[in-house]
Amino acid sequence: MVEMVHDANRIFISTHKSPDGDAIGSSLALKQGLEKLGKTVTVVVPDAFPAFLNWMVNKGDLLQFDQQSEEVKLALQEAELVFSLDYNNLSRVGKDLEQLLRTDETPKLIIDHHREPEDAAFVAGLHDIEASSTAQLVYDFIQAFGEAGLIDKRTAACIYAGIVTDTGSFRFRSTTAKTHRVVADLMDLGLVTGEVYNEIFDTNSLDRIKLLGYVLDKKLTVFPELELAHISLSEKELNQFNYKSGDTEGVVNYPLSIKGVNVSCIMKENGGIIRLSFRSKGDIDVNLFARKYFNGGGHLNAAGGMSELSLEETVTKFEAAAKEYFGA
Amino acid sequence: MVEMVHDANRIFISTHKSPDGDAIGSSLALKQGLEKLGKTVTVVVPDAFPAFLNWMVNKGDLLQFDQQSEEVKLALQEAELVFSLDYNNLSRVGKDLEQLLRTDETPKLIIDHHREPEDAAFVAGLHDIEASSTAQLVYDFIQAFGEAGLIDKRTAACIYAGIVTDTGSFRFRSTTAKTHRVVADLMDLGLVTGEVYNEIFDTNSLDRIKLLGYVLDKKLTVFPELELAHISLSEKELNQFNYKSGDTEGVVNYPLSIKGVNVSCIMKENGGIIRLSFRSKGDIDVNLFARKYFNGGGHLNAAGGMSELSLEETVTKFEAAAKEYFGA
Repeated sequence: MVEMVHDANRIFISTHKSPDGDAIGSSLALKQGLEKLGKTVTVVVPDAFPAFLNWMVNKGDLLQFDQQSEEVKLALQEAELVFSLDYNNLSRVGKDLEQLLRTDETPKLIIDHHREPEDAAFVAGLHDIEASSTAQLVYDFIQAFGEAGLIDKRTAACIYAGIVTDTGSFRFRSTTAKTHRVVADLMDLGLVTGEVYNEIFDTNSLDRIKLLGYVLDKKLTVFPELELAHISLSEKELNQFNYKSGDTEGVVNYPLSIKGVNVSCIMKENGGIIRLSFRSKGDIDVNLFARKYFNGGGHLNAAGGMSELSLEETVTKFEAAAKEYFGA
Repeated sequence: MVEMVHDANRIFISTHKSPDGDAIGSSLALKQGLEKLGKTVTVVVPDAFPAFLNWMVNKGDLLQFDQQSEEVKLALQEAELVFSLDYNNLSRVGKDLEQLLRTDETPKLIIDHHREPEDAAFVAGLHDIEASSTAQLVYDFIQAFGEAGLIDKRTAACIYAGIVTDTGSFRFRSTTAKTHRVVADLMDLGLVTGEVYNEIFDTNSLDRIKLLGYVLDKKLTVFPELELAHISLSEKELNQFNYKSGDTEGVVNYPLSIKGVNVSCIMKENGGIIRLSFRSKGDIDVNLFARKYFNGGGHLNAAGGMSELSLEETVTKFEAAAKEYFGA
């Protein structure tokens, strides 16, 4: 892969829809590292990213496909190499961009940690489902060039952002000794973790904190016999708290802190569609659950899905599915 | 200090009142390390510790002074060396135990990271206010003996517990590259961080989660012009959620996640006394604030205090003091 990068001048980096901290962090870190090697790099996100990542993105740093499709097409035409970051299947970038990538013949490299990558789509890759985050893999990839100075303070912050968001601040079991050593090395390179933490986690609105409070006090349903809890939120409830994209990020983790709860689900109504997020502990596979019942997928312990039923019907479907799948 | 340990056979380890994760974790880690060196070690806590630390403590691991004062006196009489862990002043162990320690002439060593240690009380020490936790210092201290095998998986878990609780899971600015490297080394020694995390953070009762929700939704008062927020809880409110010691641990950190809030305070009524906890960001000194107005103290960014006024009067006093101190 290092060889292929050396041979290319124009490089196109893509990441998944609804890009999160790891998607944006790993993409920008790779861009910055490759630019230090003299490459011309374009980062493309399918759609908008949450506001708590604004600090990472300078003007001109990336193209947003749903608003700048012509620029994206041009960049892809000129590219000699395409990177797919933090996603395992071309379908994860959304239908239109997927089609563009599938019909384009530029060689594609994957750097990712999600299960079951679509191997046929990529000529090579750095793929490790044990890695804490794609950002950690990007760190390894940049190091593989063996040149000092490729990772500066800003790049270190992007990598840290990917790691800290994807590990739930070093709590998920994907966190290894290696993860902590990478962070230590990034701090040696000038990273001030508190600054990044502050930008990502401490920019809540009062509405968002109150929404979290409302959810935990009033909307949590626990099924002790299934070791499971769920939260459902209607569009009307969300609007009461002036809901903005990203406001319920992480809420799905709270029920897992209750003793005896090993599976958590949040169901959220948005524009007539219900989006579901699942989290689990230990060997409980929500990836499979999301695939089987809710047209989704993800990791063993973190997955997503969707439903076109009403919120009430989705809750009923979820409870029945959970009983069947987890109650066995 | 290493020399003094080599010369002593019976060692007495003390820690502070209302012992937290770092107090218990550092004390037990030191005990286990010293026992591997062939020492007879007694750990003494002034009073009860929260239930989320139960997993760390085996039967017979420690004496609780408020219930076993005779055994404590005997252990102190026989001790050739006393360690003071995670506290800076003998007054922090409570009046009766303080008197016992002050009148006893056994040499005392301090391992601690709190400001302004009472130097006169100790013959030597490992004191570093920049250290993330006392547990991290205990790791260094045990390593200083230069013997392999002193830190096993169980000891590693105790040290990690101290670090992860005192750094807010690696978020506070006391977290350094060294902190992450120590954790990586502990993982190499067999530590499974997810197991410890689970024991400490994921044993909430549903009541505790609902109390958190109630507080965030209904009890948060923000003063944007002072960049400050406070929470006050009456005994009656706490009882509605079947309050148990430790249930509000960490709640004081939530307001700091609101954009523009840099100081947070929780006031809690308990048995006619109001206990206050303060947290701050950056250079804002709540240690000084707690000393000046509420007969307390602690760290730059984390301190405690108390008030014998009613809850309502305490809120009024706090608001006036905050205006005077932070509004200047």
